[in-house]
Formats: sequence, structure tokens, C-alpha cells
Amino acid sequence: MPSLDTAFLILDYAAVAVFGASGALAAARRGHDIVTFAFFAAITGVGGGTLRDLLIDAPVFWIARPGYLLVCLAAAAAVWLAGRHTWRLSALLWLDALGMAAYAVVGAAKALSLGVHPISAAVMGVMTATFGGVLRDVVAGEPSVLLQREIYVTAALLGAMVFVGLAALGVDRIAAGLAGFGAALALRSAAIVWGLSLPAFKGRNHSDPL
Amino acid sequence: MPSLDTAFLILDYAAVAVFGASGALAAARRGHDIVTFAFFAAITGVGGGTLRDLLIDAPVFWIARPGYLLVCLAAAAAVWLAGRHTWRLSALLWLDALGMAAYAVVGAAKALSLGVHPISAAVMGVMTATFGGVLRDVVAGEPSVLLQREIYVTAALLGAMVFVGLAALGVDRIAAGLAGFGAALALRSAAIVWGLSLPAFKGRNHSDPL
Amino acid sequence: MPSLDTAFLILDYAAVAVFGASGALAAARRGHDIVTFAFFAAITGVGGGTLRDLLIDAPVFWIARPGYLLVCLAAAAAVWLAGRHTWRLSALLWLDALGMAAYAVVGAAKALSLGVHPISAAVMGVMTATFGGVLRDVVAGEPSVLLQREIYVTAALLGAMVFVGLAALGVDRIAAGLAGFGAALALRSAAIVWGLSLPAFKGRNHSDPL
Repeated sequence: MPSLDTAFLILDYAAVAVFGASGALAAARRGHDIVTFAFFAAITGVGGGTLRDLLIDAPVFWIARPGYLLVCLAAAAAVWLAGRHTWRLSALLWLDALGMAAYAVVGAAKALSLGVHPISAAVMGVMTATFGGVLRDVVAGEPSVLLQREIYVTAALLGAMVFVGLAALGVDRIAAGLAGFGAALALRSAAIVWGLSLPAFKGRNHSDPL
Repeated sequence: MPSLDTAFLILDYAAVAVFGASGALAAARRGHDIVTFAFFAAITGVGGGTLRDLLIDAPVFWIARPGYLLVCLAAAAAVWLAGRHTWRLSALLWLDALGMAAYAVVGAAKALSLGVHPISAAVMGVMTATFGGVLRDVVAGEPSVLLQREIYVTAALLGAMVFVGLAALGVDRIAAGLAGFGAALALRSAAIVWGLSLPAFKGRNHSDPL
Repeated sequence: MPSLDTAFLILDYAAVAVFGASGALAAARRGHDIVTFAFFAAITGVGGGTLRDLLIDAPVFWIARPGYLLVCLAAAAAVWLAGRHTWRLSALLWLDALGMAAYAVVGAAKALSLGVHPISAAVMGVMTATFGGVLRDVVAGEPSVLLQREIYVTAALLGAMVFVGLAALGVDRIAAGLAGFGAALALRSAAIVWGLSLPAFKGRNHSDPL
């Protein structure tokens, strides 16, 4: 059985890889070149974790370990080589979902391990999970995934809260992490498949000049 | 009479609350769900102060004190409950003005108190005051408040300069802070009410292919 | 002959000045006022270096030395006074190219000097070189320079890699820096003049619903 650190390290690399691939897919949608693929893979892959580390004043994780960047490059190369298949739009959605779920847990876990207050740690999980994708969309000039009605932030919040809550109750961190990851992924998956959304703010549907 | 720290702490929470509400109002304009309300309230409410703390290498203010986040949540809930009233667009403008004025002073004050050069401290006030709103607009995919012709950055600059200038002259910091807050709010209010703007760059109005 | 520190300091100020001017030019395109000119000059001029310093956990370079901000103000004033000349769009492109080339080297050099791994240092050069311009475009609500097909990130990457590679081979840092600067500027110049671009991702040109 892997140790705690190993488990989270694997989840961390996995999150970087899938977010990196989602960044490269965003570049693919606009027909960019391979270097721009790599650039988008890098900012999407490490963006969320970079924000987390800046906020909790930890050394930025990929500076000392360029392996993370190489993972992003590999993801960019894989997307480039995978080429013109029709599953790409769908793949972007699901890779993004996996990355979001992984980062919701990894972000909260790193914050908790540095003694951050549990509420802040859960928020850190949400921000870590969403910032890479927001950065990808903002730089690509596309409407942010946050602006879609489908459940997204909510799934990250659920995953981070499940993890932080179980950890606070003394549950083993690997189990808590898997539960949080599973909860976030399940809710986001349900949102993608069935178009689930929370009730929208009502004001919008009325004769309101807002 | 409140102590210096208490006075700035109150102004700080007030700025977070009104910026948080302005973030939630931006979410309301697009008919988002309650979690997205909270997300926008959080990034708008604490965004400016977070940038300030990162820049001056201070611990990010809300990490250790999740009360700030709860204020953002409360602001989001208040906007949600306030519902479909027609005063919302107007409220967004005025809450943004209050938050901007408060953060121009608080941002500069925190920088000064950490020994930052007065010029940099004034700039820090401006960036703190404007970054939350810029973040809100960029993530919401709306034209940034910076791009409107009405006086905005100028008001933040005035407030920060009044505060830093008076503080440098030895004026009591609470008085200097109130003067700076009042100056920024007054100028921004005048800009909103009368549509004041500084002279625009001329090149634009001529047959210039720029 | 200037010392190492002096040489890089000059390049650093020059990069801030030309990026600052490019920020002011972006403000000019929209007919903004002088304060917004200064704001755009500041965020574009110091944005890339600020990101670099945050990432490598160095004190943000302009906080203690407000001279950098004054350079941005001077650049904004110069653009304002230069007025309505028709060379401005072209000037934006070339100033941006100079700033990009300078920052690709300066960003990598500062990271190297702080003991950052060469691969990360090269990436730091790229991010430093591109982030100011991205910030300018995102805040101005314009399509980022990254989204154009012309070679841009690639030029920054080339410059950073040439510099880091030569430095790793023991070449004098000033010579390595000049070589990196020249390589980045030459490639970007060629891209501007001849519209050079790398091969685009193929999937786009086919009946692909992505």
C-alpha cells in the first residue's frame, strides 16, 4: 500500500497531466502550434497548484521539480499526436473533471498539512481545482467554465469539504482523499451527463433591468 | 475611540463585504447558482487584499482568519435573498465605489506599516483597490470597470495619495485614512453621478489607423 | 565594460520601459485618460517580473525600488505626448518584441542566480516574457498576443533556452544574455516581418466537431 505522501504525489501528477491535456485541447480548438500547446498545457496544468502554493506561502511546487513541467509537455505532445479524432471535445470535459476532482483534494490536503485552518483549506481546494481551468479559459479568450450553469464549483467544494470533514473526524487521509475525489468526480460526472445544475438566481427571469 | 488597528480592521472587513456583494451581484446578472455567487463573492472580496499580501510578502490575510470568507458568504447570501429588486445595478456601482475607497486606504496602510516605500505603498493601494473588481470582471467575461471612461483608477489613486501624503506629514493615521477614504469616495461618487472623466487621449478621434 | 549586475539591471529597466510603453499604447487604442495610461503601463511593465519574483519567492523587484514605477509613468507620458502619429500600432508590436526578448533573458537569469533548476529557469524566462503582455491584453479585453498564429511564445522560449544553455556550458553570462536576447528578438522580428508561424495543429482544418 502506498504511503500517504506517495498517494498524494501520484494524484498530484495525475491532476497536472489531465489539466495539462485539457489546456492542450483548448489550444487544439484554435489550431495553435506545438509551442502554444505546451504553453497552455503548462499554465493549465500547474496554474491551480501555483496559486495554492503562493497563497499558503509554500515554495511553488514545480520550480524545484521540473518533472511536473515535463508531464505537461508530454500531455501536450499526446494531444498533438492524438490528432483529429472526434472525441476531443468530450475528452476536454472529462479530463477537466478528473483534474478538478484531484486538485480539490490535493489542494486542501497540502493546505491542511501546513496547518491551515480547515475552512481555508477547503477553500484552497476549491481555488486550486478551479484556477487552472479559469486561467486556461481567460487566456484562451473563451467563456470560463465557471460561467456555465452546470455544476462545477459546487463539485469542487463538495470534494474539498468531504475530504476536510473526514480528515477532521480522524479518518485516514488516503481514505478521506479517495472519498473526496470520488464525491467531486461523481457530482461533476452527473452534472456533465444529465446537465445537472443548482437552482439559478431568480431575478434574472423577470422584468428586471439589472 | 477605536484604536488604529481596530479602525483599519473594520474598514478591511467592510471592504471585503462590499466587494463580496459586488461579486455576488455580478453573478446575479448572469443568473448563477448560490455556490457560484459565493465563489464570485470570495474572489472579488479578497482578491485585492490577496494581491497586496502576495506583493509585499505578508501572510495572505484570509488564510489564518476564515472570518473574511464567512463575510463573503454572508454577502453572497444577502444578495441572493435580496432577490429581484431593481436597485441592483445601481447597488453594484455604489458597493464597488465603497470597496474601492476602503481598499485604496487599507492597501496603502498595510504596505506602509510593513515599511514599504511611500510611492510603492500608494501604488499598492491602487492595485489593492482595483484588482478585486478587475478579477470579478475578467472571470465574469465582462468589460473591466477599468475600461470605462468614467474616473475609477484616478479615484483610487487620489485616495491612496491623500492617505500616504498625510501620513508622511505626520497626520494621525485614522484621520489620514478617513481623509483618503473620503477623497476616493467623493471623486468616484462625482464620477458616477455626473459621468466625470479625465480628458481622453486625442489620437483616437482622428483619422489614425492605430 | 559593465559588470554583470549592471548589464542585467539596464536590460531590466529597458524591458520595463518598453513593456510599459506597450501597455500605454494599448490604453491609447481605446482613448483612455492619462491615469489609465499609467495603470496599463505599470501592470504591463512590471507584470512579468512580478510573476517571476512571486514564483521564485524573491522580494517583488519594484516594491523596494519605485524607480521602476517611475519608468512606467515616464513611458506612459511619452506615449501620451507622442500623440496621434500613425506609427503607433507598429510601435506596439516592436516594443512588445523588445520587451519580450529582454525579459526572456532577465527572467531566466534571475531564476538561475537564485539556484533554480535550469529547465524551470528557462520556463521562468518564458513566463516572465509573456505574462506582462497577456495581462495587458486580458485586462484590456483584447485577444491575447498568445492567440495569434505568429511565433511569439516560441521566440521567448528560444531566447531563454539559448541563454540557459550557454550559461550551463560556462559561457560568460553577459555574452549568453546578449545571445539569448538576440535570438529571441531575431525570431520574433522575422515572425512580424514575414508572418512566420509554426505548423498549426491539423485537426482544425477537417470536419471535426471539436
